[in-house]
Amino acid sequence: MSNIIEMGKRAKETAVELARLSTSDKNRALISASDMIMEDMAEILAINEIDVKNALANGIKGAFIDRLTLTEERIRGIADGLRQVASLPDPVGEVISMKTMDNGLIIGQKRVPMGVIGIIFEARPNVTADAFGLCLKAGSATILRGGKEAIGSNVAIVKSIQKGLRKEGISEYAVQILEDTSRETATEMMRLNEYIDVLIPRGGAGLINAVIQNSTVPVIQTGVGNCHIFVDETAKQEDAIRIIINAKTQRPGVCNAMEKLLVHENIAKEFLPKVCDALREKNVELRGDDKTRAIENGINVATDEDWSTEYEDLIMSIKIVKNVDEAIEHIRKYTTHHSEAIITENYTNAQKFLNEIDAAAVYVNASTRFTDGSQFGFGAEIGISTQKLHARGPMGLKELTTTKYIIYGSGQIRE
Amino acid sequence: MSNIIEMGKRAKETAVELARLSTSDKNRALISASDMIMEDMAEILAINEIDVKNALANGIKGAFIDRLTLTEERIRGIADGLRQVASLPDPVGEVISMKTMDNGLIIGQKRVPMGVIGIIFEARPNVTADAFGLCLKAGSATILRGGKEAIGSNVAIVKSIQKGLRKEGISEYAVQILEDTSRETATEMMRLNEYIDVLIPRGGAGLINAVIQNSTVPVIQTGVGNCHIFVDETAKQEDAIRIIINAKTQRPGVCNAMEKLLVHENIAKEFLPKVCDALREKNVELRGDDKTRAIENGINVATDEDWSTEYEDLIMSIKIVKNVDEAIEHIRKYTTHHSEAIITENYTNAQKFLNEIDAAAVYVNASTRFTDGSQFGFGAEIGISTQKLHARGPMGLKELTTTKYIIYGSGQIRE
Repeated sequence: MSNIIEMGKRAKETAVELARLSTSDKNRALISASDMIMEDMAEILAINEIDVKNALANGIKGAFIDRLTLTEERIRGIADGLRQVASLPDPVGEVISMKTMDNGLIIGQKRVPMGVIGIIFEARPNVTADAFGLCLKAGSATILRGGKEAIGSNVAIVKSIQKGLRKEGISEYAVQILEDTSRETATEMMRLNEYIDVLIPRGGAGLINAVIQNSTVPVIQTGVGNCHIFVDETAKQEDAIRIIINAKTQRPGVCNAMEKLLVHENIAKEFLPKVCDALREKNVELRGDDKTRAIENGINVATDEDWSTEYEDLIMSIKIVKNVDEAIEHIRKYTTHHSEAIITENYTNAQKFLNEIDAAAVYVNASTRFTDGSQFGFGAEIGISTQKLHARGPMGLKELTTTKYIIYGSGQIRE
Repeated sequence: MSNIIEMGKRAKETAVELARLSTSDKNRALISASDMIMEDMAEILAINEIDVKNALANGIKGAFIDRLTLTEERIRGIADGLRQVASLPDPVGEVISMKTMDNGLIIGQKRVPMGVIGIIFEARPNVTADAFGLCLKAGSATILRGGKEAIGSNVAIVKSIQKGLRKEGISEYAVQILEDTSRETATEMMRLNEYIDVLIPRGGAGLINAVIQNSTVPVIQTGVGNCHIFVDETAKQEDAIRIIINAKTQRPGVCNAMEKLLVHENIAKEFLPKVCDALREKNVELRGDDKTRAIENGINVATDEDWSTEYEDLIMSIKIVKNVDEAIEHIRKYTTHHSEAIITENYTNAQKFLNEIDAAAVYVNASTRFTDGSQFGFGAEIGISTQKLHARGPMGLKELTTTKYIIYGSGQIRE
């Protein structure tokens, strides 16, 4: 029997135990895991240094190395994250509805743990503890499969967490990590329907697509954000500029950052020079359609590829549109269904945009950067769903649970 | 470009139109489709007769032929079904929650249509109209792929519905059916992620597994029901017998019918003869474990295959268990996570069973036959989900929708 099947079996058994834990049991486990990570800091840092050295030796550089690298501060952040999850309300056990039917049957719908949650992620060691923490609080066991470059760091973090669990008398199999990071094992994990209830990939488009293509286990697609902001004719232009600068430049590498600007043609001549100057001041490289370039003639042409690309960088493409309908049409063609915004004072256009744009989050007069579990008041998030099943938008603890119907009878039979 | 891609494109375009329809528009379309089916009754019956003849000529018989066959009464039932869906509340547009954050952002979560729903089903022509009706009311376009034996009848019903839609000025592409019933086309449909938002297979275990194995489109697994009833030591035995007879014999071919009986050892000698007599009177073939056969010596042995089989027939296997824990352990091993019941007067055991059994519906002192959209008050159902994502248990109109976040701002940016 392969190792991954063994892991699946242990996770499934442990899930039964986790589902029975009280909120305070789970919180104690989270805090104990957090303490143990702090205690093991020196060891984790030493192992992470080896991961980073190996990655550099393999020619990896830039943002990838940054995400892979742990520091004292980052490890403290990871440990604090687990304590924060302990402070969040427990989603398990909430009865969402309960009603008495004509025949006296009492039918309730109750939030229960998912069971076993698989997380497939790239080389970001912080995901190891984050994912474990949220899944445990939601009453589920976790099987992790992280990128090979971070495997040493990930295993070290999991070992610390497991020590913390054992100390509280909870099965260490509440979190397991695949030490074999081959593609074959990942594929095997994606087909472990008997033991894994849901798979959540966290990473770039390539990883997510690979999981969708290969998984028979149900997947929650988290995603890519090619986010648009449409500045309508009636927009408060100063607000629009503040929002655009925030959405594009506050943190350009994340999925809720803005990538495309659409501007109503009636204000383009007045508005574009102002917004482009502000963007250039923030070192944003601008691209545009022909109409945009007729006004801002220094900028390069935006190709069809530009319109569909999530830059995750200080680059933005600009298009001039006739009206809200053309804006909606363009967005419909290129949206990744993540976050889209309109800046307008026109009531009808605001409502139209909210109704007709098909995305996880649709904004009027605010930055797309708010699409985030903590900003939505969930305390933390496991990712942002850009698909339509189960959860859409930021996923907090609730979205990591399922429900079951509980029915209290008194001898009822069906006629 | 293949036909199925064309269909997908048309469905996606139509979905935009359907999402904008008012409730009364949708209701008029449903009633018009219902009228048209009644008008075309003779034609549908004639085509169905050919389907049935062909099936018989191909050696098909029994329950399959029964499900395939349409009669005047059944067509009236199909037409009435569409009218009933028209009378149900519209799930689309409901704002599930709305709150104002500290920064003044107003974040609401709104129920919106899924978009395009694919239904893969076996040779039951009634599913054609049922599925269309529910999906349309939920604001989505439907692509149907039914079994080849019913293709003539299915196409005829779809044509009637489309006439009804056109009469109300609604795109006929709100419902489309694959006329090519080859396996290749079905597989192509299962990989149409760009155009289909969710696939719901309706049929036996073979069909459902094929969809899970092959689909890259998100699937809602509807399911098989190997349903157990555990009769505890303290059960009201007369109630238990009534419930068991109902759950096993009222309609043995459906997924919420009971398949396995577990009996507490302390009452087995008294209870088993009574319940077995009652079951035999209803022509139920009984199988049992050794302890059962020591009491009821006429019955055959239940093999390990029996414990995991959904008979969908007048067959039942019986096992004697030590207590509620052994009952839970047995169910955990063989459950299909559909419907499970305990008959008991013991409060602690009732709560334990409700908490620890992992199924879509868990009952105390009632028949498993209640797991059904209409019995749960949903008016109608598209199927019963036995998986954990998105919906679990009977799926009504609400479960055919998704949500999106709508955010009303006044210039907010993220700090």
